[in-house]
Amino acid sequence: MTSEQTHPSGRSGVSRRGLLFGGAVAGLGAAAAVGADVLLNRLQPGTATERGGEAMPALHGSDTVPFYGTHQAGIATTPQAHATFIALDLRAEIDRSALRRMMRVLTDDAARLTQGEPALADSEPELGTVPARLTVTFGFGPEFVMRAAGPSALPDWLGPLPAFSIDRLDPAWSDGDLLFQIASDDAFTVAHATRMLLKDARSFATVRWTQHGFRRALGSEKPGTTMRNLFGQVDGTTNPSPEDEDFARVVWAADGWLAGGTSFVLRRTRMDLDKWDRLDRSGREQSVGRTLANGAPLTGVNEHDEPDFDAKTSIGFPVIPEFSHIRRARSENTDERIFRRAYNYDHPPSGAEISDSGLLFVSFQADALQQFVPIQRRLDELDLLNEWTTPIGSAVFAIPPGCVAGGYIGDTLLV
Amino acid sequence: MTSEQTHPSGRSGVSRRGLLFGGAVAGLGAAAAVGADVLLNRLQPGTATERGGEAMPALHGSDTVPFYGTHQAGIATTPQAHATFIALDLRAEIDRSALRRMMRVLTDDAARLTQGEPALADSEPELGTVPARLTVTFGFGPEFVMRAAGPSALPDWLGPLPAFSIDRLDPAWSDGDLLFQIASDDAFTVAHATRMLLKDARSFATVRWTQHGFRRALGSEKPGTTMRNLFGQVDGTTNPSPEDEDFARVVWAADGWLAGGTSFVLRRTRMDLDKWDRLDRSGREQSVGRTLANGAPLTGVNEHDEPDFDAKTSIGFPVIPEFSHIRRARSENTDERIFRRAYNYDHPPSGAEISDSGLLFVSFQADALQQFVPIQRRLDELDLLNEWTTPIGSAVFAIPPGCVAGGYIGDTLLV
Repeated sequence: MTSEQTHPSGRSGVSRRGLLFGGAVAGLGAAAAVGADVLLNRLQPGTATERGGEAMPALHGSDTVPFYGTHQAGIATTPQAHATFIALDLRAEIDRSALRRMMRVLTDDAARLTQGEPALADSEPELGTVPARLTVTFGFGPEFVMRAAGPSALPDWLGPLPAFSIDRLDPAWSDGDLLFQIASDDAFTVAHATRMLLKDARSFATVRWTQHGFRRALGSEKPGTTMRNLFGQVDGTTNPSPEDEDFARVVWAADGWLAGGTSFVLRRTRMDLDKWDRLDRSGREQSVGRTLANGAPLTGVNEHDEPDFDAKTSIGFPVIPEFSHIRRARSENTDERIFRRAYNYDHPPSGAEISDSGLLFVSFQADALQQFVPIQRRLDELDLLNEWTTPIGSAVFAIPPGCVAGGYIGDTLLV
Repeated sequence: MTSEQTHPSGRSGVSRRGLLFGGAVAGLGAAAAVGADVLLNRLQPGTATERGGEAMPALHGSDTVPFYGTHQAGIATTPQAHATFIALDLRAEIDRSALRRMMRVLTDDAARLTQGEPALADSEPELGTVPARLTVTFGFGPEFVMRAAGPSALPDWLGPLPAFSIDRLDPAWSDGDLLFQIASDDAFTVAHATRMLLKDARSFATVRWTQHGFRRALGSEKPGTTMRNLFGQVDGTTNPSPEDEDFARVVWAADGWLAGGTSFVLRRTRMDLDKWDRLDRSGREQSVGRTLANGAPLTGVNEHDEPDFDAKTSIGFPVIPEFSHIRRARSENTDERIFRRAYNYDHPPSGAEISDSGLLFVSFQADALQQFVPIQRRLDELDLLNEWTTPIGSAVFAIPPGCVAGGYIGDTLLV
């Protein structure tokens, strides 16, 4: 983390380090106020963690992410440790006015729960008091948009992706009319928010699928550490950051009811850890084009070094193989960029396998067809990682923009 | 948290508050060394959590729990946020000497992984560097003990519990020969440790069942907050604490190869949240005998107030009903105490239900028959909560004592 932070607004933020050293004395007084145990533990990293001498972490359960705004939360939000993705199918009788009623109720639930308040009909209000950065992000499938506003409102990218040869899609993990992405640093909070939203959605829609994912816990690693997937690979190095100047161009749609919204792609990608185990370290690094130790490109030293795709070995082969993942994923066309927000999954295996594990690949981009599909097509044609990974679920949703207090998510479509 | 801490050894610990104020100046210097951002964030609780202005939590990924010791870790350890319980069945050909080989390998894996080092055969060593208080606790089923040392080594409580009328047990969630309890504040760490242990166990045993559970994230709530279950109930108020004087008597076995070990009971208890929703708040409080707001007994004000079972309402009924959970669970016999270490579970439901949720009720006690069974029998006979909860899995394991470096878990049985 640098000492100068840039705010999402683009303006340079206050230097934290400056604040600290300028305000050290005041700070020490504040330390006593917030709890001396907390501070002392921070001054003694690595102390024993058994009960009786345990390090007390900074409390973050009351941290909140604003609900209302130009964009929905849960996209540019630094990924929380846990996420549940739920797709629902609308009941047959649900029409435009019922959709409006449903989205008003669900918006109200999300607005309250994300701020640490119980939902209106919350029968366990005590469970809603620990938001831990809870976000609820809603998405609409093609059927939702058709019922809401007819075919003219349908973005051309909203529907099943073109077929890829590597796909082994299971309808049980694919498609849907309505999406909830429910994410928090606390798994218990995700469970309670999920139940509250499903209770209020139940008369309008039925659950089609539910997918849980996890990342490192808040505070497990330094903020800004690129995620590793269950293969051990550093995964997402080139991901644009919400602080980047062109983030808005990559992610946010500009026109019509979707202005300020985006497209959401979820690819449930099974990773064959048992087969991966039979590949040696060099083979693993060649398949991706990056070192396992720190994710540096095979032509570089540090994770964020620019890969040199022209570099050759002493016997004339490319150092970063043609078939490697980073080479195939990279485009010359700067319009073909996406913003990834992936989660890992790990379920008890059935049968003789040791693992049923993989990646909930999630990406946001203004236009799924123009930005996501070309990348996936290149990976489909030739990507050594395909040997160990299989897409088994696929879904695309339109993520409407955020709303103001008094409005509701989807109000630009349902007005 | 009090300012005076008592160590598990029973000796009074150093006062943290005293240390802080005595060493404030040195502390401030240390703060700069460990990272000013961390400290400053602790001095500004409640700052915005969006990327760019987010509060940075104290880093706890490198926190470790000692592996070697008189007792296995993961019992008196303050419960971590995530736990996976795995039962394995031994392969037919595994004899005493194979058990010894297996436990040496698994002990070595656990000793390394819990200290943030890769396991010896770790093919993804980079995934082992964030222990986040990882503990691995091993347990033995009756078949393991029989093969290891014959019937004379079998504790009389090691085997399926007596049948209870409320049970609807599924063999898919019951019994087993070998138990792994793998727990960490980081779900990713649990996933990696699980895989490493299963890879090394694979030639000795097959997986019988796997059960994941979660509690509040580290730092979501103040340490010492009693867990709430998914019904919203404060759950575990009367649990003994490892600091209590009689904790050792409740938990640790005293004799034979199990001296320093304990018994482990897991009851997978389904909670019917949909049915619970139809019960009003007063009915919910009567079913347990505690208020939902803070878990106080219905005759008290604060959570830890002693319940007054003799108190009567104005029309002569007991304030805490005869059928309430706390009344039935409470024993006059102080030998009938257990130490609970439960986790919640929440899985995607099948069919029309909104939830497949419940409690992985876990308890440790020196003797499962003498301590756990009498409590469960009273609850089986009469406990209003039985209306909404159903035990669907049950398992008992013998938890051997800890070991010293150079030894292995089970060496008191397998010598």
